[in-house]
Amino acid sequence: MKREELVNQIFSKKSFLCVGLDIDLKKIPARMLEEEEPIFAFNKMIIDATAPYCVAYKPNLAFYECYGIKGMMAFEHTITYIKKVYPTHFIIADAKRGDIGNTSTMYAKTFFEEYDLDALTVAPYMGEDSVKPFLEYKNKWVVLLALTSNKGSHDFQLTEDRHGEWLFEKVLRKSREWGHEENMMYVVGATQGRMFEDIRKVAPRHFLLVPGVGAQGGSLRDVCRYGMIEDCGLLVNSSRGILYPCEKDSCGIERYADLVAEKAKELQQEMAKELETL
Amino acid sequence: MKREELVNQIFSKKSFLCVGLDIDLKKIPARMLEEEEPIFAFNKMIIDATAPYCVAYKPNLAFYECYGIKGMMAFEHTITYIKKVYPTHFIIADAKRGDIGNTSTMYAKTFFEEYDLDALTVAPYMGEDSVKPFLEYKNKWVVLLALTSNKGSHDFQLTEDRHGEWLFEKVLRKSREWGHEENMMYVVGATQGRMFEDIRKVAPRHFLLVPGVGAQGGSLRDVCRYGMIEDCGLLVNSSRGILYPCEKDSCGIERYADLVAEKAKELQQEMAKELETL
Repeated sequence: MKREELVNQIFSKKSFLCVGLDIDLKKIPARMLEEEEPIFAFNKMIIDATAPYCVAYKPNLAFYECYGIKGMMAFEHTITYIKKVYPTHFIIADAKRGDIGNTSTMYAKTFFEEYDLDALTVAPYMGEDSVKPFLEYKNKWVVLLALTSNKGSHDFQLTEDRHGEWLFEKVLRKSREWGHEENMMYVVGATQGRMFEDIRKVAPRHFLLVPGVGAQGGSLRDVCRYGMIEDCGLLVNSSRGILYPCEKDSCGIERYADLVAEKAKELQQEMAKELETL
Repeated sequence: MKREELVNQIFSKKSFLCVGLDIDLKKIPARMLEEEEPIFAFNKMIIDATAPYCVAYKPNLAFYECYGIKGMMAFEHTITYIKKVYPTHFIIADAKRGDIGNTSTMYAKTFFEEYDLDALTVAPYMGEDSVKPFLEYKNKWVVLLALTSNKGSHDFQLTEDRHGEWLFEKVLRKSREWGHEENMMYVVGATQGRMFEDIRKVAPRHFLLVPGVGAQGGSLRDVCRYGMIEDCGLLVNSSRGILYPCEKDSCGIERYADLVAEKAKELQQEMAKELETL
């Protein structure tokens, strides 16, 4: 998907919400477990409930791989369903891949050819030749880890070099030589607050994929105040806050789907207000 | 597998060879493609030919995932075959995973429970909570990226901080607080030559997984001179150099298997000489 198309979706839906599809079988309603493909059945319910309020879906591969072949089939069926029923939604595979060139080439084939997704999260530690193979696809996106939402982000990402440059800044600066604003986004955790100002100094025009609103404690308000740009430039992800809106068996499936839709709509409405300020 | 068992294997076989199972369908003999499961059939041939000369196998997930469900079935069948027929071989999933805590927990379940492998390569960029979930399994190993074999390793891994510490050194130093010599190894590329001396200053006792001998140009001699320790402390990987010993259809399958065995034996014999110096 082109940047222009993504931006059009954001402004027509008044939403920059990305719904993370990180399905934990222990947390889904018991009745879903009776379905032949519980993960896919749950995802389908979530997707149908949230599609009007979001512009992107982000399945996290870990939550599919852990169930082996069955999990990967649920992943494939989920992708196929989104592409068929909601073809204007942007799909990000959250897989945090990155390896030597010939291996990254294989990962790129997997996610951009075999699954034909829009974007893939990539880890930068191995440098240029581990990232470039993903950038060879037209209208596909690398979402490079920059400053993540977790506590461990402080361990290495905030290491200052001799010139006072943080590692995450170096990742932003160097990677701008490899890709551009039409094929590269960055992961910046919502928990990083005012650090978005520093990010915007180095990457003023790139889209940022922002996890960490909700369960991880990040503030949508702060993310927008310090990170939003003219054409929005943000995709804000919520996973647990939307997927598990109540105790799993405290209500019937229809009510559960309604609660999911409400949670997504709440976020969308906050986002609509932020977009109005532009 | 415990360190002691791995070391016993190394000294009884006089080998610290790890065979990388990075299967590229374009490179395997045409006759293999007629098999119902070409990747597994090829792997089985490679495993049977190399088992006497190596102590470990390292399937690279990228090369299975890129064929979707079929690829993952080939991965599972390969693992099952090694575990059944060659149960003393150490198996490393080369997947370079690493994510926020709850996601890394899912990856750990995948590789250490679902597949019950010995070790997994992990990327350090996201810090402590992205690595620790993998360390909660007894006799399982994290193989953390430190100084990789590719050109891009210079982009970030060799960044010096204000105290003159390289990023890869910081990864070694910090991660020693999370794991120890019985559950953590490091990836250090064979192409890094004398840098092994620096690695050994920070990680004098850890096992190192060393890719980059062969196709990538690293020297086994240098790796041993600067990286070998009392109980060996090295697993040296070769993939392409062993898997594709000749033009793919220049000979019959039996001859191909013989050539694979010869390549593995050559490396094993060089390794035997190195072990004798201890």
